[in-house]
Amino acid sequence: MNRAIRIGVMGSGSCSDQTARVAEEVGRRIAKAGAILICGGGGGVMEAASRGAARRGGTVVGILPSDDARTANPFVLIPIVTGMGNARNAINALTSEALIAVAGGPGTLSEIGLALKVGTPVVGLGTWKLSIDGESPDDVYRAENPTEAVEKAIELARTRVLD
Amino acid sequence: MNRAIRIGVMGSGSCSDQTARVAEEVGRRIAKAGAILICGGGGGVMEAASRGAARRGGTVVGILPSDDARTANPFVLIPIVTGMGNARNAINALTSEALIAVAGGPGTLSEIGLALKVGTPVVGLGTWKLSIDGESPDDVYRAENPTEAVEKAIELARTRVLD
Amino acid sequence: MNRAIRIGVMGSGSCSDQTARVAEEVGRRIAKAGAILICGGGGGVMEAASRGAARRGGTVVGILPSDDARTANPFVLIPIVTGMGNARNAINALTSEALIAVAGGPGTLSEIGLALKVGTPVVGLGTWKLSIDGESPDDVYRAENPTEAVEKAIELARTRVLD
Amino acid sequence: MNRAIRIGVMGSGSCSDQTARVAEEVGRRIAKAGAILICGGGGGVMEAASRGAARRGGTVVGILPSDDARTANPFVLIPIVTGMGNARNAINALTSEALIAVAGGPGTLSEIGLALKVGTPVVGLGTWKLSIDGESPDDVYRAENPTEAVEKAIELARTRVLD
Repeated sequence: MNRAIRIGVMGSGSCSDQTARVAEEVGRRIAKAGAILICGGGGGVMEAASRGAARRGGTVVGILPSDDARTANPFVLIPIVTGMGNARNAINALTSEALIAVAGGPGTLSEIGLALKVGTPVVGLGTWKLSIDGESPDDVYRAENPTEAVEKAIELARTRVLD
Repeated sequence: MNRAIRIGVMGSGSCSDQTARVAEEVGRRIAKAGAILICGGGGGVMEAASRGAARRGGTVVGILPSDDARTANPFVLIPIVTGMGNARNAINALTSEALIAVAGGPGTLSEIGLALKVGTPVVGLGTWKLSIDGESPDDVYRAENPTEAVEKAIELARTRVLD
Repeated sequence: MNRAIRIGVMGSGSCSDQTARVAEEVGRRIAKAGAILICGGGGGVMEAASRGAARRGGTVVGILPSDDARTANPFVLIPIVTGMGNARNAINALTSEALIAVAGGPGTLSEIGLALKVGTPVVGLGTWKLSIDGESPDDVYRAENPTEAVEKAIELARTRVLD
Repeated sequence: MNRAIRIGVMGSGSCSDQTARVAEEVGRRIAKAGAILICGGGGGVMEAASRGAARRGGTVVGILPSDDARTANPFVLIPIVTGMGNARNAINALTSEALIAVAGGPGTLSEIGLALKVGTPVVGLGTWKLSIDGESPDDVYRAENPTEAVEKAIELARTRVLD
């Protein structure tokens, strides 16, 4: 089977209007590229990205922390109901072939860490800056805008498939 | 959003040819009804049901125990990579709006228990017989064939949505 | 390190007085044998077994479904706060070197299935009767009373360690 | 029940000798304070902290990613066998009443994020520096040495209990 690429979009459950516009454009471009959008299924960045993808005809998978499918945002086509709170962040990191972190709070920080841990490439868009011993992980790519972020994520996911 | 109903098919990772034929027909009828097939994404009953649904044009979601999407059977359209072994059975039980247990080993037994625990209706097709203190749980429905199993599962899922 | 054997006690969060007396005696005998009691940390059978073990000076580990340590019963010495609902049943099954199922509802049924799946021996005390195709799994041992159940569980756990 | 405070120590599965000395001293001081050490049960920082606590007579709980208790480091008294890979990091964050991050790789980064997300206070000892929009989360406390880290963690855990 020739599966569509799965691109994750991670970000907070509430966000500014400006961040929501960025996230929506990220979602739109993921759908336009024919990729599946993986997200946490909630509000804020997740909902904005889901809306962008759904309105462009894309497939939106929401991996929910709650045990109730009705907590999914209205643009999620396929809710995965985990009932396991933040432990589901590890599933997001494994299921996405590349991941775009948009702005974000502590949950997003954890997803960046989990993705780096399992080798899922991360593209950051206005997200956390990280360093330890004066060095930053060189597998977090910085993008300036949604177009660049999605192009880079898809390129990274493709390269990975070729490993 | 008007989401498609999600019907789970649970069963062992290896099975007899006869059980595989039953599972494939279950998958085919789920797709024919326009429902999404949720399964564990592996071989045996899971693969046969996935094949039946995929060949009928249905959407197959495989919630994998492993941390590698390449372990999904070839008919899974959307692999959810949990990396959490049998703990993912709890996700199957929550994500499915009704669940069909086909034959099955101990993993299937655990999914029946988890589904009953969270209130997901279960339809059994040649699966475990259960009793405690001389009584059987009356929320496990017994079906005689794939047609009856899928009809009953969809009816139960619809009723539940109306709760 | 010479670790103490870990014996799980699985059962419902509410139970009859008679079942509670059985569970408490199971807990007492686990502690008397110098084993650690693993349970789900809740009420009913879990609390009765915890009380029996704690009063005999034993160590009680409660693997909680909730995200709040305060939901542990008062006899749990070490709460493990999973926040993942019934998915924690898979952790109980893996952490216990043998498991005693006392009476029980659907959650207990799922733990029996998960234990059989991962090779953790199960001793049943008034619990579920299971069969498929007219056969019962021969790795569920039936005990008549708490003394026999704990002796059998410890014997099975020891044998397993020698594998 | 008057439960002992649970202090988590998070860090990489391999580390320099100098970091190991720091982690061992952290473990020793946790045990000396009568607290239970929660860790991931592996090597590196986890093993050094476990050794420090165990040699001082402390209780060491190892929440393992693998499905095999034999992967625990030899100083773990109580292995919790999750079989769920990095998803267990969410359990570490919930089970610890305060958490000390020692140096660390991406896994440690994820634990810091998960802890901040669920409100578990974090003390950093030579660990990740984080900022977003030019601001750092003010609930990560920086300590200069093991003594200060453990004192601060216990103070934070105590305060939290009084909430």
